[in-house]
Amino acid sequence: MKARVHVMLKTGVLDPQGEAVRHALGALGFDGVEAVRQGKVIELDLAETDPAKAEAEVKAMCEKLLANTVIERYEIALD
Amino acid sequence: MKARVHVMLKTGVLDPQGEAVRHALGALGFDGVEAVRQGKVIELDLAETDPAKAEAEVKAMCEKLLANTVIERYEIALD
Repeated sequence: MKARVHVMLKTGVLDPQGEAVRHALGALGFDGVEAVRQGKVIELDLAETDPAKAEAEVKAMCEKLLANTVIERYEIALD
Repeated sequence: MKARVHVMLKTGVLDPQGEAVRHALGALGFDGVEAVRQGKVIELDLAETDPAKAEAEVKAMCEKLLANTVIERYEIALD
């Protein structure tokens, strides 16, 4: 079973990387970009085949390793 | 209009960051993880309201800045 995890900075946390991208896009002539946030996406191939168990396992991975929950939020999507 | 861009290494390109995550998950006791790929996700707030034009604009951003198309592939999703 495959899982895709998005890890983004929480709203209100300054995102200098996103800000740098927005600035660079402006410099390239893309004027219509109002805001940019950059995060991580992690694709996992899991041996687990039960969706509920897989989701619980991925949630534990996020809490323990993949996300810093003080400043980051995560979303889990299972395929 | 909002757009979300995923930038992942192409299949066959070595992903040391994903490999490091897989190894760290194994060390934490998550044994059922067969493969991990890590990429970037970029969320854009665009002034453009026409979906076709927005997609074309984001595609140009990917080709020029957001992705290194020699080793990375990208996916665009519009909200």
